[in-house]
Amino acid sequence: MLPLQIHLTLPPWIGDAVDADRRYAGDEERVGLAIALSRHNLEHAGGGPFGAALFDANSGRLIAVGVNRVIPLSCSVAHAEIMAMMIAQQRLGRYRLNEDGRHYVLATSSQPCCQCYGATVWAGIDELLIGARTDDVQELTKFDEGPLPADWIGELERRRIAVRRDILRDQARTVLAAYGASGAVY
Amino acid sequence: MLPLQIHLTLPPWIGDAVDADRRYAGDEERVGLAIALSRHNLEHAGGGPFGAALFDANSGRLIAVGVNRVIPLSCSVAHAEIMAMMIAQQRLGRYRLNEDGRHYVLATSSQPCCQCYGATVWAGIDELLIGARTDDVQELTKFDEGPLPADWIGELERRRIAVRRDILRDQARTVLAAYGASGAVY
Repeated sequence: MLPLQIHLTLPPWIGDAVDADRRYAGDEERVGLAIALSRHNLEHAGGGPFGAALFDANSGRLIAVGVNRVIPLSCSVAHAEIMAMMIAQQRLGRYRLNEDGRHYVLATSSQPCCQCYGATVWAGIDELLIGARTDDVQELTKFDEGPLPADWIGELERRRIAVRRDILRDQARTVLAAYGASGAVY
Repeated sequence: MLPLQIHLTLPPWIGDAVDADRRYAGDEERVGLAIALSRHNLEHAGGGPFGAALFDANSGRLIAVGVNRVIPLSCSVAHAEIMAMMIAQQRLGRYRLNEDGRHYVLATSSQPCCQCYGATVWAGIDELLIGARTDDVQELTKFDEGPLPADWIGELERRRIAVRRDILRDQARTVLAAYGASGAVY
């Protein structure tokens, strides 16, 4: 019998760690939530120190969050950004979020890896907000982030996805450094 | 309340369409199954005309299959290759398939898009077998396949993932052409 389904979950502590009713205004509040999630995931030994959050750009409403779930779910796809995008799409009932004419923002604690970079192209987001750079990830942890197109920002901008980075970069680096110092291998 | 989970399924017709006990020997039998899945997905109006299958390289045992499920699941991530990789990993209980020292093969009806390309880097596969090229997809359907690194094959090979393409390419093109002619928008 071939298996025909997969069930992906976020950890139960998310409910206590995130204020789902708050409005998140501005880039720093949005990336700040993604970094807080990355720190919680490290503290709970839940997997890689990465967090993401997806917002309605205008209202600041939080649509979905994600943390890295690769090890607990035995799933190399289950990066923070992928979890947030999939859950947001299923919540709103469409595979391209901004087909309703509104604008959506994906905030992530570190620059997306090659997989999550590609996924942002299809998800219907309008803005990608980034905390730490790939150089920070590779300096402070042992993670490879994979190959990207040389002009990865331009490729997104030509598809109408704005990119802003170095948002609370030092804060994001602090979590990566704590992970590196912990000797964790997840 | 934030949603904390996602459930992804393959269509029920997979059980009838695939011989799960057969051993698939050689590149053509393996890509042939991926193309057959792409055709079934088109005939069942299940989504994009794309199929994938994941094998143990030496025994030819079929570990998992996938078809494009973007529209039925409201999930832009649910491409054929992603479904096959996630289900295979969960079946074998590890996020990097080849950590057991065996070799694994991902066969796909068309060259992976930017998202699935990135995902192959992390999945623990040793060989990527491709039917139609991205040029075929973009000629015969309206799908954009997204930006890749200029030397996308070399980037995989440097990570010990062998790439072979143009396997049953005409057969794969035939399904893409049927999709294009159908006027389908999924």
